[in-house]
Amino acid sequence: MKYVRYQWNDRTFWGVLEGETIIVLDAAPYRGGKSTGSRLSLENVRLLAPSEPSKIVCVGKNYLEHTAEMHEEVPKVPCLFIKPSTCVNAPFGDVEYPRGSKRMDYEGELAVVIGKLAKSVCAENAADYILGYTILNDVTARDIQKSEGQWTRGKGFDGFAPFGPIVTDEINPERVRIRSYLNGEKRQDGSAGDAIFKIPYLIEFITQSMTLLPGDVVSTGTPAGIGSMMPGDLIEVDIDGIGRIANRIIPTKNF
Amino acid sequence: MKYVRYQWNDRTFWGVLEGETIIVLDAAPYRGGKSTGSRLSLENVRLLAPSEPSKIVCVGKNYLEHTAEMHEEVPKVPCLFIKPSTCVNAPFGDVEYPRGSKRMDYEGELAVVIGKLAKSVCAENAADYILGYTILNDVTARDIQKSEGQWTRGKGFDGFAPFGPIVTDEINPERVRIRSYLNGEKRQDGSAGDAIFKIPYLIEFITQSMTLLPGDVVSTGTPAGIGSMMPGDLIEVDIDGIGRIANRIIPTKNF
Repeated sequence: MKYVRYQWNDRTFWGVLEGETIIVLDAAPYRGGKSTGSRLSLENVRLLAPSEPSKIVCVGKNYLEHTAEMHEEVPKVPCLFIKPSTCVNAPFGDVEYPRGSKRMDYEGELAVVIGKLAKSVCAENAADYILGYTILNDVTARDIQKSEGQWTRGKGFDGFAPFGPIVTDEINPERVRIRSYLNGEKRQDGSAGDAIFKIPYLIEFITQSMTLLPGDVVSTGTPAGIGSMMPGDLIEVDIDGIGRIANRIIPTKNF
Repeated sequence: MKYVRYQWNDRTFWGVLEGETIIVLDAAPYRGGKSTGSRLSLENVRLLAPSEPSKIVCVGKNYLEHTAEMHEEVPKVPCLFIKPSTCVNAPFGDVEYPRGSKRMDYEGELAVVIGKLAKSVCAENAADYILGYTILNDVTARDIQKSEGQWTRGKGFDGFAPFGPIVTDEINPERVRIRSYLNGEKRQDGSAGDAIFKIPYLIEFITQSMTLLPGDVVSTGTPAGIGSMMPGDLIEVDIDGIGRIANRIIPTKNF
């Protein structure tokens, strides 16, 4: 299935995508959403992030070549951090340049959307708790991340987690490639199969400590090739079978 | 005002506490809750955490003597980390010993409950966004916190943020003392006035990056005297004018 969440006539809906047609659901798929029988054309809606997570659990340093480019040591266990729900952004939404930062980076990632409450899940059962896969850009204020020790603020600005455009269970998450393009120029091109810690183990590891709620997102780390962005830049991330997200960087707003 | 959230007849309500009487509200105070006219006796309800935060933003190393006891450097800016909503625990709830940890610590703290959406708030206006103050125990799996660099997992186990018993705006948050008792023996006794970064500045600093939503909690750091707990221990934290929380440590559950 390919799930989408979208705005139509100023209201928010969920749907199942079949080609260019949306079959309207009456609720989120992780809340038991069922078909209403209505259909819409994809071109008539504005796509939103395809989940409303209570938290986004991210995995740092999960690709060897990225860990090397950051001059970091390879972690012995998954390096977890949280992006709060206020980071959620639409797959084609603008991202504001972070106040007080001098370096804003993209990090294209494969992410998981949780389908049902997951607590103390074994790796071999992890698939039962996964609604599907999506694309997430783990936007980062790199100078703030590096100077503060804890990554919470550098990773946690409003809008710093655009994701989408769909959630799908029709890909093989260990086979796909993750590609990022800055202003149309390819910058990242890594295989999700190269991740140090694979998704089933990540679900086990995370849910040994914190429960994942329906709709929560686990973002599985970025391959090599990260880099900086400036206002006006267009950053795109694509993964075969999921599609592409595209976000424009806009200047810091004044209040 | 003194706000409480509680369970009565298997349902959850908000109320205003007057002495030992609860005046029932029809919604959370940060959602415009108004009196229903009904009254209940405090002794007939089970108190719950007095907020349903989307996130708990915590401030590490915010007291000089605690920073010294942890052999950490004094931070130049507030050291932020997030406890997710799955950490929320009742003021008298049990706390499960963390799976895979060999050291579980208490950290008694003064915390703020946010009353309305707060984005890019100036310190001088911060009070307008505060519903009131509460007591929070920033429970920590110390060995995991220290070994992983990012504090997310060591601080983020389910139930690791008991708080309450009330939210009140009737205290002076720079005057109160924070005291912790392990099995009745005093272990922490610090003045909130000694915090390195004060609450109005913390609200400004946090909301320059991430929006605080109504009901969100900001926990302002722990004074010196932290220490470890074992299953069977009773940990209590009290602050004048707010009351006391008391939590029993229970063994790790098997699944």
